[in-house]
Amino acid sequence: MNVCIIGASGYSGRELVSLLLDHPYAKLTTITSRSLDGQKLEDCLPKLRGKDRGLRFSNPSREQLCQDSSLEVFFLALPHGTAASYAIPLLEAGKKVIDLSADFRLRSPVSYKEYYGEEHPAPSWLKQAQYGLPELHDLSWEKSPLIASPGCYPTSILVPLAPLLKSKLIQKEGIVANCISGISGAGRTASERLLFCERNENSSAYGLPKHRHLSEIEEQLSLFAEENVVLSFQPHLAPMNRGICSTLSVLSEGPVRTEKIYDCWKNAYSNRPFVQILASGTFPETSAVTGTNRIDFSGLADPRTNRYVLCSTEDNLIKGAGGQAIQAMNLCQGYPEESGLS
Amino acid sequence: MNVCIIGASGYSGRELVSLLLDHPYAKLTTITSRSLDGQKLEDCLPKLRGKDRGLRFSNPSREQLCQDSSLEVFFLALPHGTAASYAIPLLEAGKKVIDLSADFRLRSPVSYKEYYGEEHPAPSWLKQAQYGLPELHDLSWEKSPLIASPGCYPTSILVPLAPLLKSKLIQKEGIVANCISGISGAGRTASERLLFCERNENSSAYGLPKHRHLSEIEEQLSLFAEENVVLSFQPHLAPMNRGICSTLSVLSEGPVRTEKIYDCWKNAYSNRPFVQILASGTFPETSAVTGTNRIDFSGLADPRTNRYVLCSTEDNLIKGAGGQAIQAMNLCQGYPEESGLS
Amino acid sequence: MNVCIIGASGYSGRELVSLLLDHPYAKLTTITSRSLDGQKLEDCLPKLRGKDRGLRFSNPSREQLCQDSSLEVFFLALPHGTAASYAIPLLEAGKKVIDLSADFRLRSPVSYKEYYGEEHPAPSWLKQAQYGLPELHDLSWEKSPLIASPGCYPTSILVPLAPLLKSKLIQKEGIVANCISGISGAGRTASERLLFCERNENSSAYGLPKHRHLSEIEEQLSLFAEENVVLSFQPHLAPMNRGICSTLSVLSEGPVRTEKIYDCWKNAYSNRPFVQILASGTFPETSAVTGTNRIDFSGLADPRTNRYVLCSTEDNLIKGAGGQAIQAMNLCQGYPEESGLS
Amino acid sequence: MNVCIIGASGYSGRELVSLLLDHPYAKLTTITSRSLDGQKLEDCLPKLRGKDRGLRFSNPSREQLCQDSSLEVFFLALPHGTAASYAIPLLEAGKKVIDLSADFRLRSPVSYKEYYGEEHPAPSWLKQAQYGLPELHDLSWEKSPLIASPGCYPTSILVPLAPLLKSKLIQKEGIVANCISGISGAGRTASERLLFCERNENSSAYGLPKHRHLSEIEEQLSLFAEENVVLSFQPHLAPMNRGICSTLSVLSEGPVRTEKIYDCWKNAYSNRPFVQILASGTFPETSAVTGTNRIDFSGLADPRTNRYVLCSTEDNLIKGAGGQAIQAMNLCQGYPEESGLS
Repeated sequence: MNVCIIGASGYSGRELVSLLLDHPYAKLTTITSRSLDGQKLEDCLPKLRGKDRGLRFSNPSREQLCQDSSLEVFFLALPHGTAASYAIPLLEAGKKVIDLSADFRLRSPVSYKEYYGEEHPAPSWLKQAQYGLPELHDLSWEKSPLIASPGCYPTSILVPLAPLLKSKLIQKEGIVANCISGISGAGRTASERLLFCERNENSSAYGLPKHRHLSEIEEQLSLFAEENVVLSFQPHLAPMNRGICSTLSVLSEGPVRTEKIYDCWKNAYSNRPFVQILASGTFPETSAVTGTNRIDFSGLADPRTNRYVLCSTEDNLIKGAGGQAIQAMNLCQGYPEESGLS
Repeated sequence: MNVCIIGASGYSGRELVSLLLDHPYAKLTTITSRSLDGQKLEDCLPKLRGKDRGLRFSNPSREQLCQDSSLEVFFLALPHGTAASYAIPLLEAGKKVIDLSADFRLRSPVSYKEYYGEEHPAPSWLKQAQYGLPELHDLSWEKSPLIASPGCYPTSILVPLAPLLKSKLIQKEGIVANCISGISGAGRTASERLLFCERNENSSAYGLPKHRHLSEIEEQLSLFAEENVVLSFQPHLAPMNRGICSTLSVLSEGPVRTEKIYDCWKNAYSNRPFVQILASGTFPETSAVTGTNRIDFSGLADPRTNRYVLCSTEDNLIKGAGGQAIQAMNLCQGYPEESGLS
Repeated sequence: MNVCIIGASGYSGRELVSLLLDHPYAKLTTITSRSLDGQKLEDCLPKLRGKDRGLRFSNPSREQLCQDSSLEVFFLALPHGTAASYAIPLLEAGKKVIDLSADFRLRSPVSYKEYYGEEHPAPSWLKQAQYGLPELHDLSWEKSPLIASPGCYPTSILVPLAPLLKSKLIQKEGIVANCISGISGAGRTASERLLFCERNENSSAYGLPKHRHLSEIEEQLSLFAEENVVLSFQPHLAPMNRGICSTLSVLSEGPVRTEKIYDCWKNAYSNRPFVQILASGTFPETSAVTGTNRIDFSGLADPRTNRYVLCSTEDNLIKGAGGQAIQAMNLCQGYPEESGLS
Repeated sequence: MNVCIIGASGYSGRELVSLLLDHPYAKLTTITSRSLDGQKLEDCLPKLRGKDRGLRFSNPSREQLCQDSSLEVFFLALPHGTAASYAIPLLEAGKKVIDLSADFRLRSPVSYKEYYGEEHPAPSWLKQAQYGLPELHDLSWEKSPLIASPGCYPTSILVPLAPLLKSKLIQKEGIVANCISGISGAGRTASERLLFCERNENSSAYGLPKHRHLSEIEEQLSLFAEENVVLSFQPHLAPMNRGICSTLSVLSEGPVRTEKIYDCWKNAYSNRPFVQILASGTFPETSAVTGTNRIDFSGLADPRTNRYVLCSTEDNLIKGAGGQAIQAMNLCQGYPEESGLS
């Protein structure tokens, strides 16, 4: 099967390219970029020297992409807004779309406007999109040809949290999600604040109190809780290329007991190849997951506050972006879930 | 006035040496270290080449230190436990002691045992020690010859939080303190987990849920709240040499309004030379405070959760250790508060 | 075929474990470590969680290893000196040995003593060992059951330099090799000078003028030049986990002309899968090769000085250690050269 | 005396601002920047919060600056080309100018055109400018009202090398200068290649073989050698904010002997407050000089190659830029050399 990546010049797009080049079943035949049009892949991603199979970036029109009968699945690694402008015609042309942007992650067009500042261009597709977090949702092309691949922060928060909310082990009030992200999470735009000398030896909060990812975190948690969940989300930048380290403080429903949450997790995630549940009292490190599609997490009970503390780590560009998108494709296509990801 | 630093080989001790060498009123005449005994200061702190005034490390006995009539004020930059073993004889010999360890930060010997695992060697001194956070406590030698200099995490949490609790603007329940520390906070011990390759490109939580600093944070907050405060404290390491970035999530007492907390802060900290209150909606960065004795912080109201989010940054080795100790000395001695610190 | 890694706890050993676990033909069945004896692989290399195939570290005696008929090829990732003490009995027992230490890299026992301070324990094996740099030497088990895998610095210097010396395009006098290494090159020993806070935001030369790797660089270059080569070798540390960046300044034999060296390189390295020759005027970056077994290099003529400047980069733990050792095994075993390395 | 900094928004300009704010004799009254016009100093340099004396950036015309009789000395922290366009009218208006750009560092207009690509706009001033390296040249306003402050790389190379060339201890042929710079040396321009994720965990050569700084290095060395010196200059970037680490390989004139170069250095630099000559066999580290105006260096003899290896470190933004400019002002004004720099 031939696949195409649209907008492959950012950090997520590049990671996706690297991973798909090695995929055993999907064949990456087209990579597009306005800014890199005509350039050789290996010149832009020197990590791939000697193994880029001669691929070059191209810049076809939407029409050309829609009419290219050799292409089946499209990954969109575009800014929000632009992504929808590609997704809609592609879907209408009968293509399958895995969108890494935020354009179809929310079901509510009201939330979309609140967090992204504009009317959603195609609200009907919001309802049809599948939220592409395979550990929480069964994905299939039958359900929809459109997969909205989750954000990096949401993945790190939803995986440990959703089953606990669903099982009513924790309260929906008082959740504080604290996250530390590597700098690649802020994208590849040439801006002063992302220069090496500005971010090195530096750490700070940002985007408070309504970082855009909050909207999808709350919408998804509310789905699992079956009532409205409102939480505090505190993102930070730390001087490393990759990795998200999330620490969640949640109030227990009833007396805390570590086994409760571990039983719930083991039940929810047995046999999930990319989930690693660590022993209580140990803490996941981002360096253990960078380069992998894993999410590692652990939890502990704090009887003093009647809270649980949940700690998770993932690679923001893999499990938080490109890897997760491939995992979704694998499942929808019926490939082994780990294809191209181990 | 002559001062002495006992145990000057760790990161806090070294910072203290650097700062005191330039102090306009206090003269650093003695620096002790068991491991560096006999070595030239500039050979051990090459940053000080050419300005170490010929100082060498020595290793005098406790008795010699007590009997040295040329020395008035002693800074202890020793591990907890060891610090008390020096402080007690020095105090009994009539010396003034500023202890950077945790040995005299708690008033409660019960808490001490709970968090440090041993009976406190001199509980009577616990009551007499001044907790050396000048923004919260008036310090003077008249009150006590013993100052317990606060920990780095507690400083970053107490300064923004204490006046809000005192003014009943926030609830004492549901406080979540999330902190990111540079690696120097973990000390200068040669251990595998602190090697460059282990900490670089890495971030993780640690010490949960009962990091030792929690004990002094809660004891101090309880003082200001005039009732028992129990909180969640979530420390993390990030790959930078210095800096603490704390983000505190607290429930408002009554409806949130940003002005309330800013009025309270301005009232509490007008004219404090090392406090910088930043505009709401901006976020302090650690890189702006490293190398200074400042603590910068800002706050904002989140009406969705009825919480305030408070963000603070400081240099863990200066405002969080050596600088704060000097600030305390300045005030007790009647020197200008900024002496040697600007 | 079953393989064993002896001494798998250091950075090179760990990298070797990671790579061999995924090897399509060789099966890693035994990993030994004195310090990690009994521990699960994934607990020590958390990167491998979920894919460690249940391996544990063991600590068998030399006798047990020699007598284990299930094991054919042994990789030694041990300190020099210790490596020989394993290699010799294993070789005598008829095993094949790929040694990543310096113990068998030199042909001259005199050089060994000069650079390593002791008599070589088995000078006869020095003559029999193959220097395991596949781009320069044809490797086969027929020649010898002992492969001495090259050092990280030597690899980065020898690959660009050896063919130029062999072709008499450059003078053997006046070679200056300047190298920058990531910190993992200094090993995983818990020592103060390798702490994060000591190496971060720091760069310096070290080991001048006779770093141990100089001995094998000169011996190998002399082989290719067919006369004695003496050079200046200037190693440095820079704050990054991995990567070697080497810049070589060499005097041209006759007038400089860029094409001369490119023709020579293309001739020497056509079809070598791990060699990437970059266009003159571009400069290899370490970030492009970390995680790969490649060596990238370029060159340019400087007519002002009648010199060529050659720049190379590699991952010190892969092409400079574990990857190169596997490449050697692949070739000796008749596996495709890239097996387990792409 | 009032001083003005023109173009204070880059890294060198910012460092100059920070240093001059604390100067005991010169009063910084005007800071200009086109991009920051009207902004408060402390908002742009948050390190200076609370100590910026209410300064704001302004954007006066050249005419206004020339006519401002309150201003005596002007520091230009501008790109080359632009610097001359300010320097010339200011000099003609009788002002004193310390230029941190490359515009007046060369005496030869031919070299200027060769390295900077354009005719020099005021060749007569090239002859009149003083090259502002106080360790090598006596500076005074009597000689000239124009000081060309040296580049960061040249400083690190010239200080150890010039006296050896002058004393004929080394040959003028075969000099290889290898340098590693922190990223701030590349400036504060928002460009993709300077993003955190591009430079972190990365090292490479650049600017070979004719980096612009080479022109002033050779011109200055030729002055001291009294004949034409041509050398190889190999600059690199490493992932740190600040610091230059230079390692120079030079051929001895006559047999090598370490004492020869140390005697020469001690003779040349006795009583120079910012020069630290380290023991042979030890190597300067950049972390020991960052934040200072020092240059530290050591040397050793390598009898195998009949070469000396000289290693130096400095802070590229202080001794390599802003600090050195202030040092020059101090000397010309008759202030103590260390004013504002210790």
